[in-house]
Amino acid sequence: MGLEEDLIAALDADRVVTGADELRRHGTDEGWHPPAAPDFVVYPRDTEEAARVVRVCKRHATPIVPFGAGTSLEGHIAALAGGVSIDTSQMDQILRLSVEDMDVTVQAGVTRRQLDAKLRPEGVFFSVDPGADASLGGMVATGASGTTSVRYGTMRENVLSLTVVTADGEIVKTRSRARKSSAGYDLTRLFVGSEGTLGLITEVTLRVQPTPESMTAAACAFPALDDAVNCVIEVLAHAIPVARIELLDDVQIDAVNRHFELALEVAPTLLLEFHGTPAETEAQAKDVEAIARTHNVLGFDWAADEAQRRALWHARHGAYESARALRPGAQGFTTDACVPISNLAACIAETKADLDASGLTAPIVGHVGDGNFHLAILVDPDDADELQRAKDLNDRLVRRAIGYDGTCTGEHGVGYGKLAFLELEHGPQALAMMRAIKVALDPEGLFNPGKVLGPAPD
Amino acid sequence: MGLEEDLIAALDADRVVTGADELRRHGTDEGWHPPAAPDFVVYPRDTEEAARVVRVCKRHATPIVPFGAGTSLEGHIAALAGGVSIDTSQMDQILRLSVEDMDVTVQAGVTRRQLDAKLRPEGVFFSVDPGADASLGGMVATGASGTTSVRYGTMRENVLSLTVVTADGEIVKTRSRARKSSAGYDLTRLFVGSEGTLGLITEVTLRVQPTPESMTAAACAFPALDDAVNCVIEVLAHAIPVARIELLDDVQIDAVNRHFELALEVAPTLLLEFHGTPAETEAQAKDVEAIARTHNVLGFDWAADEAQRRALWHARHGAYESARALRPGAQGFTTDACVPISNLAACIAETKADLDASGLTAPIVGHVGDGNFHLAILVDPDDADELQRAKDLNDRLVRRAIGYDGTCTGEHGVGYGKLAFLELEHGPQALAMMRAIKVALDPEGLFNPGKVLGPAPD
Repeated sequence: MGLEEDLIAALDADRVVTGADELRRHGTDEGWHPPAAPDFVVYPRDTEEAARVVRVCKRHATPIVPFGAGTSLEGHIAALAGGVSIDTSQMDQILRLSVEDMDVTVQAGVTRRQLDAKLRPEGVFFSVDPGADASLGGMVATGASGTTSVRYGTMRENVLSLTVVTADGEIVKTRSRARKSSAGYDLTRLFVGSEGTLGLITEVTLRVQPTPESMTAAACAFPALDDAVNCVIEVLAHAIPVARIELLDDVQIDAVNRHFELALEVAPTLLLEFHGTPAETEAQAKDVEAIARTHNVLGFDWAADEAQRRALWHARHGAYESARALRPGAQGFTTDACVPISNLAACIAETKADLDASGLTAPIVGHVGDGNFHLAILVDPDDADELQRAKDLNDRLVRRAIGYDGTCTGEHGVGYGKLAFLELEHGPQALAMMRAIKVALDPEGLFNPGKVLGPAPD
Repeated sequence: MGLEEDLIAALDADRVVTGADELRRHGTDEGWHPPAAPDFVVYPRDTEEAARVVRVCKRHATPIVPFGAGTSLEGHIAALAGGVSIDTSQMDQILRLSVEDMDVTVQAGVTRRQLDAKLRPEGVFFSVDPGADASLGGMVATGASGTTSVRYGTMRENVLSLTVVTADGEIVKTRSRARKSSAGYDLTRLFVGSEGTLGLITEVTLRVQPTPESMTAAACAFPALDDAVNCVIEVLAHAIPVARIELLDDVQIDAVNRHFELALEVAPTLLLEFHGTPAETEAQAKDVEAIARTHNVLGFDWAADEAQRRALWHARHGAYESARALRPGAQGFTTDACVPISNLAACIAETKADLDASGLTAPIVGHVGDGNFHLAILVDPDDADELQRAKDLNDRLVRRAIGYDGTCTGEHGVGYGKLAFLELEHGPQALAMMRAIKVALDPEGLFNPGKVLGPAPD
């Protein structure tokens, strides 16, 4: 039988889709990289069905591109060699929640907001917040993190166990539900950040956290970027467990002021969130305020109530939307890098100087406690010259971050957008190790070809 | 040239050792498994020298057994196939400390206490405390954890980057010093818990933590094990950031009372430590005490001062020593397992009943916040029947833990002592993935043969 017949036999006819719009959508992410449509989109509903699809693809030597919510940014889901997009959106069951063990097991297609709605009434929450309403499987695959990682960690620290389908179509559970283990190689973390190139993630067991009794927020503007970063370094050195500590540069503050009708001072600004008992959040905030005052803070603005707290974080989460509104019609060319925090102020300052010289506009936001920052370069998608200048700026930014003992991507991943930088960052021998692992686990190269390890497309 | 000549050419004659005592010592760990001496012990002083040694071993197709401090428990360092023990104790330099970035880079042979002495004056500390004065390289290799993991995490959460020598004798840095990254496969975590089977760890970059302003301790005894475990579950559900929360069973309490001349109530007991500002530690302790009272606590004893705090934790760290003193001349047959905390009380209760039926004596201590517990079974090493009963008890314990969705080892590792349980825990497909990775990175099987993935020795 042909591939299509086999896929239909593995699922049902109505879960094997070839409509042009569906194909196009499944090859298009939220980044600026050229999309590439798959030949089929399929919708398995559980691990067993997904394994059947993988076995069909293996039989037909057909590429497999795992698809979560399509919110990735570096071309992760582009079907560069065609093949079958496995859409996990119908794998949307929350399979098990244990408040005693503070863990939850979900199918890979469950999204962050869906999980949040389930957890909230139980008095627990899942901490990793990349902004987008990504699927949990996708968040594992890209090694996602976000605004709360400074306190609660990234996906790497919050995934306990995975169920994956291997290139042979076998089903593997990577680990037990024990909180820790030294029993053999860490298959779980190998899949975190593997971007669908080593197998298909079908179920995820995650740590959850008790919902804090009190959450408060503050915004504080500084005369210079250095002051803001030095304040953060000192906050961390004092072990103040800030839940979020986000940097917005002057351009980004201007953008959110305009878009959300706020009146924040246009200067490098930290947005803070505190979690704990009321006494704890009050003490944390006072301690941070005292530290900020020694770093020339211009003002320490409290979110007086829950509505103001939400408004502040709504503005932070709307950073990208507000940035795009600075230049209607422009596309956001987003990129991220991450450096040791002691190098962060210098890296951002040089990047801003480079940006000014390039004539481009790009607000900067950062998960500053992690040393991670993002640029959303606003480009006219029809202006080839401008796009090239944006690419060149990104290239210099990444090289600068690597030069500062940092990484070409703190959380967006490699996809096919950052292939060219992986050897520069890790060296040829480390890349050879990664390639050896890829070949060992996916000898025919069926899983998400052209991603993470290349080859780079033309 | 022969192997010995080549090793001497790679180092110096006085750093290639063949004395019988040295060989025996390097094949003998602190566990109960039969030792096996290597043919040579070598002492490289840096990564480059270590790489030279690995290249010599490769040329001679000679097994390589990495050696840290020799404190492992499951036969990790036994040279089952002979070969060269690479002792890292002369790789004892602390290479770089950044208090701003809260990280430190050390050579693999630096020990935990040596690091602590360096960090203390800087106002920071390294959190992972397995008890023994292990080397940091060894702690990475076994995926160590210990009493503080409930708050600060295991080695997995605290290793930022490694330098390793591959089976080809190449030098690879697994990652930049950025706090997080999504740039390619997680080679760092692949080496955490790899027990020297994938390559030789020569340098380690670790997260450090600010030293808490205040540290306080308490001990509380409960009428039953269930009460103690349920208290811990509720403490964690309230997000009280206890730094340590250790369980000692009645047998262990009796042992420490005798050995350290204490007068603790002989009952299942939690030892607690609190880190923070004075106000925080006081609030945490009060909250825990209130929770403990709802779980029938027999008494909540404060360590009134620093001397009492140290005495309590000295007793906890001397648990094994005090256990052995219960039966002079006996050897401790130590084992560990880890289960989801909701299954912990049942798993320990069944283990105690099994223990009673077996006629053996074994105090139980546990990192109860992680669901991890240890047995030190006291056996007469010359009594083959007793040793066999201990092995059978261990076998049933591990199967019980796996049946409770747990792991055959929470922190001691596999070595060659727990080989037989790995397939039971992970299933044949997961083991096949681990074997494929091993073959990909060490195709000739030179690194620590017979460990983690077997084959099991006769």
